[in-house]
Amino acid sequence: MQKIFIAGIGQTPVRENWEKSLKELAGDAALLALEDANLGYPEGLFVGNMMSGSANHQLQLGALLADWLGMHHREAFGLEAACGSGAAAFRAGLMAVASGELSSALIVGVEKMTDSPLAEITASLATAADADLEGDFGVSFVALNALIMRRYMHEYGWGTSDFAAFSINAHKNAVHNPYARFNKAISLSDYERAGMVCEPINLLDASPVSDGAAAVFLSATPPPTGKRISIAASSAASDSISLQHRKNPLRLFAAEESAQKAYAQAGISPRDIDLFEYHDAFSIMAALSLEAAGFCEPGQAPRLANDGEIAIQGQLPVATLGGLKARGHPVGATGVYQLAEVVLQLRGDAGLNQVEGAKWGMSQNIGGSGSNIITHILHQE
Amino acid sequence: MQKIFIAGIGQTPVRENWEKSLKELAGDAALLALEDANLGYPEGLFVGNMMSGSANHQLQLGALLADWLGMHHREAFGLEAACGSGAAAFRAGLMAVASGELSSALIVGVEKMTDSPLAEITASLATAADADLEGDFGVSFVALNALIMRRYMHEYGWGTSDFAAFSINAHKNAVHNPYARFNKAISLSDYERAGMVCEPINLLDASPVSDGAAAVFLSATPPPTGKRISIAASSAASDSISLQHRKNPLRLFAAEESAQKAYAQAGISPRDIDLFEYHDAFSIMAALSLEAAGFCEPGQAPRLANDGEIAIQGQLPVATLGGLKARGHPVGATGVYQLAEVVLQLRGDAGLNQVEGAKWGMSQNIGGSGSNIITHILHQE
Repeated sequence: MQKIFIAGIGQTPVRENWEKSLKELAGDAALLALEDANLGYPEGLFVGNMMSGSANHQLQLGALLADWLGMHHREAFGLEAACGSGAAAFRAGLMAVASGELSSALIVGVEKMTDSPLAEITASLATAADADLEGDFGVSFVALNALIMRRYMHEYGWGTSDFAAFSINAHKNAVHNPYARFNKAISLSDYERAGMVCEPINLLDASPVSDGAAAVFLSATPPPTGKRISIAASSAASDSISLQHRKNPLRLFAAEESAQKAYAQAGISPRDIDLFEYHDAFSIMAALSLEAAGFCEPGQAPRLANDGEIAIQGQLPVATLGGLKARGHPVGATGVYQLAEVVLQLRGDAGLNQVEGAKWGMSQNIGGSGSNIITHILHQE
Repeated sequence: MQKIFIAGIGQTPVRENWEKSLKELAGDAALLALEDANLGYPEGLFVGNMMSGSANHQLQLGALLADWLGMHHREAFGLEAACGSGAAAFRAGLMAVASGELSSALIVGVEKMTDSPLAEITASLATAADADLEGDFGVSFVALNALIMRRYMHEYGWGTSDFAAFSINAHKNAVHNPYARFNKAISLSDYERAGMVCEPINLLDASPVSDGAAAVFLSATPPPTGKRISIAASSAASDSISLQHRKNPLRLFAAEESAQKAYAQAGISPRDIDLFEYHDAFSIMAALSLEAAGFCEPGQAPRLANDGEIAIQGQLPVATLGGLKARGHPVGATGVYQLAEVVLQLRGDAGLNQVEGAKWGMSQNIGGSGSNIITHILHQE
């Protein structure tokens, strides 16, 4: 695939946002990215979203947003891969530009979850599970993750408190991120006192239901000014949606495959990655992601976290601007937030959260409990 | 864009299908296309669907179907552009193959609408309208089309019976299509006696709510045997979703743009098109599509239909296997049915509905009331 560049990014603050409609929210992020890129309108628009049909009574977000932005008649589609919709939109846009059909594309991820009653959002989130085998029996998404976490603890002997380090790191990194949902550090005792959501997952293991939008501008030609950020690798893989059909529910096979392909494409190894924006929707997903991407052996991720290796100054900084846990997880937007954050780091614009000298940044967006996993590696040239 | 080929197609009969789940239905069409292509598993899967989140409590159709088909870990996404989702998935898959990222891709369109109460489906269909400006005020999708048809009649002086020719042609062509919802011809007096849905749209102006799935196998290399069907043009354009924001609600500007670009890509003119699978969700959309694609002047499509020019033996055969009106309109699947039907014609496999010597076939899939329009021209080499 030819080299494609990220010429602009935009983010809205992740929060409960009742002042903006879905298209206004998505439009705000899009306009920021257009302004940042300063290359005029893109030739195509790819929108990542999971649940606007049920949560906002609105589909066709591509055409809706293209019109709202004034992108006169340009082509525009929606991409869906549950919580992986943002990176799916990015990858579809990337392939469109790489095909030569488009010279540029705007990728927008948006989700507006807090307008609806929480029970409805829980039901919408459950559509990412297998309806025939999981969803229709009333298994919620957090319950699926709780089953995995419980098995992980049983298999490898970790206690619940051993997972606290993932959330403490995420919250610490969110303190100085103006776009983060929670600008508040948490302690081990906060974690240990947190209310139980679905045993063994407590409130501080879980990413928050949120509203947010993020955008990225892709260009076939390098931007005339500023640092050059290119896409060194893009790779996606799928797995069974239902946990019962996985050979081993403690391994994210699609992440292993997607990450291995990405390293090969970029011509680097896990050791070369300067920061990793992982998909910490729950602490257990943070652990499984680190293992699947080859940063440690299966069962060893809590050790990596507790040894401080995942901090900004550690061997492998993760969730450098708060991650899903503390920046927030507006599901269809998350994959695009991750990419925008990697760009900030590679540009050297991450402020107090800057990973010094970052050249290679990886993001990994997960749909479902591991059924659709998309890995990107960005490079500052 | 490099030349890409269609190596296989598959369709399920369009009907109320309560025996199959969503994934079984999609899987049936997919397996038929895999068998037809006989090139093994494709490298990627692109699923067009509009409303499975609300109608079937199931999202992530990409991963769901990839797993069901045994496409071990291959990448898989869902595409959404309302009723244009099928062709959107095709175009995304086409660009993926053209980018060199994939050497082959399976495109599946699926919709399962009849499991839900009709009021829920009407609400789901309304998510293709603009929620802020149309949907939340209770305007149904048929009502939007009724507004356009009424204005068209006022502007150009046609009566309701002048539209009957579109539906009579579609039903006649569906009689011998084993995949069609209605295998029954209708007469002018049937049309004139049909119950009113939303004045001036009657039951025989409207395509039926249906279940169905269709699939197409894309390959970067020509199939080793059989006729070579290549994609001569692929083009998409958008417009405002809300009717009130269109400069002229009687013109499908996105269809004009998309069709003009497609003719230019293929290096042909409307006169060279041997058959046109248009998006006759309602008779008025059939009329506007013919005009926008350049087959007649604005306001003249009913004349074309009443002169018999749209029949199999006419100047421009349309809806050659029944169209949305009589083959049926499982919304997210429709765009893929259209493409499969064009392939049947170009292969010379359309049986009693064969357009003699067909070399150039065009399909046009419409999202919303004209807000997302995707045109493809296929060529038998």
